[in-house]
Amino acid sequence: MLKGKFITFEGPEGAGKTTVLELLMVELQQSGIEAIFTREPGGISISEKIREVILNKEHTEMDSRTEALLYAAARRQHLVEKVIPSINKGKTVFCDRFIDSSLAYQGYARGLGIDEVLSINEFAINGFMPDLTFYFKIDPEKGLKRIAKSEEREKNRLDLEDLSFHKKVQEGYEKVITRFKKRIIVIDAEKPIEEVVSDVRDALKVHFEF
Amino acid sequence: MLKGKFITFEGPEGAGKTTVLELLMVELQQSGIEAIFTREPGGISISEKIREVILNKEHTEMDSRTEALLYAAARRQHLVEKVIPSINKGKTVFCDRFIDSSLAYQGYARGLGIDEVLSINEFAINGFMPDLTFYFKIDPEKGLKRIAKSEEREKNRLDLEDLSFHKKVQEGYEKVITRFKKRIIVIDAEKPIEEVVSDVRDALKVHFEF
Repeated sequence: MLKGKFITFEGPEGAGKTTVLELLMVELQQSGIEAIFTREPGGISISEKIREVILNKEHTEMDSRTEALLYAAARRQHLVEKVIPSINKGKTVFCDRFIDSSLAYQGYARGLGIDEVLSINEFAINGFMPDLTFYFKIDPEKGLKRIAKSEEREKNRLDLEDLSFHKKVQEGYEKVITRFKKRIIVIDAEKPIEEVVSDVRDALKVHFEF
Repeated sequence: MLKGKFITFEGPEGAGKTTVLELLMVELQQSGIEAIFTREPGGISISEKIREVILNKEHTEMDSRTEALLYAAARRQHLVEKVIPSINKGKTVFCDRFIDSSLAYQGYARGLGIDEVLSINEFAINGFMPDLTFYFKIDPEKGLKRIAKSEEREKNRLDLEDLSFHKKVQEGYEKVITRFKKRIIVIDAEKPIEEVVSDVRDALKVHFEF
């Protein structure tokens, strides 16, 4: 049963998560499955306000621990106001990025420690872990090229610093996958988009027997 | 040596913390001790913005875990931008409320759990615990009467719900004191204010041998 399940999508920028989610939503809704697609802050007023504090360009002095606590706070409120009520109504909730993003980006790539970032996020989610997580695996360099292409950014956007950071994010995700191997399914995101959608749909069918 | 120390004041509303701190600051500065008096958010732009999110009256739906994470975030930034730099300059920093307030109010009185709130605050302070903490002990009923008197609020402000909540805060503080008994000095805050100031000053002299 897929009904009332909480499923998250993870992976680096350029892995195609959003596109796959949008295509999958159409398919599921055509099959009569009540599903919603969300991402933090997800239109939740408090979470939007918190995100404004995080993204405020005047805040050049923001400490990385402050930032991690703010992300956890925004996550909590989005979960309580949107994800949990939808699940309680029997909807399936697909969320673009959740706890594993914080573990990979802040815990590992930013060096705060996976265990420490996990600890504040466990406080935030209070036991409400995803039922299943798809990790979109793509070579960091290919991911960055996709972004550069799709957003028509200048080529220098793909500089060495970006690449080394994205490689660290990938290493972080690999550690997270090892830790939560029962929950996380790795998807080859380098395939053509239709095949990726099909792989995710097949995995959902096997996992939830629907 | 009192130089470069981090000292926090804790206790319920109406215990006289702020008045005592102000009088103490004057005395210490007259003795040539470089001391500053602060409280969160302490004029730190990011912390002020976070406080605005917490206190925004439109946010009636704020979850208590979101709130605890936001307080921890504001604490982190105030610590990093104001407390630690002052201490590094050799100043003594007195802070009105710090980690123990979160443990007593949110951890115990609001029911989130002292251990859980401690965990996110340990992430926020990253080992920077106060060198010494004064707990201003006062009977909750007397504290509430002092507030009602000093702020000329109407008498119905002192209702039963307030009192039972403030009793829970006191119970919370007692648990925190037991846990951190080496760090926390209990001060009888029911005495006349001059005596309280004198008790704090004497304890500082004994503790830091100055």
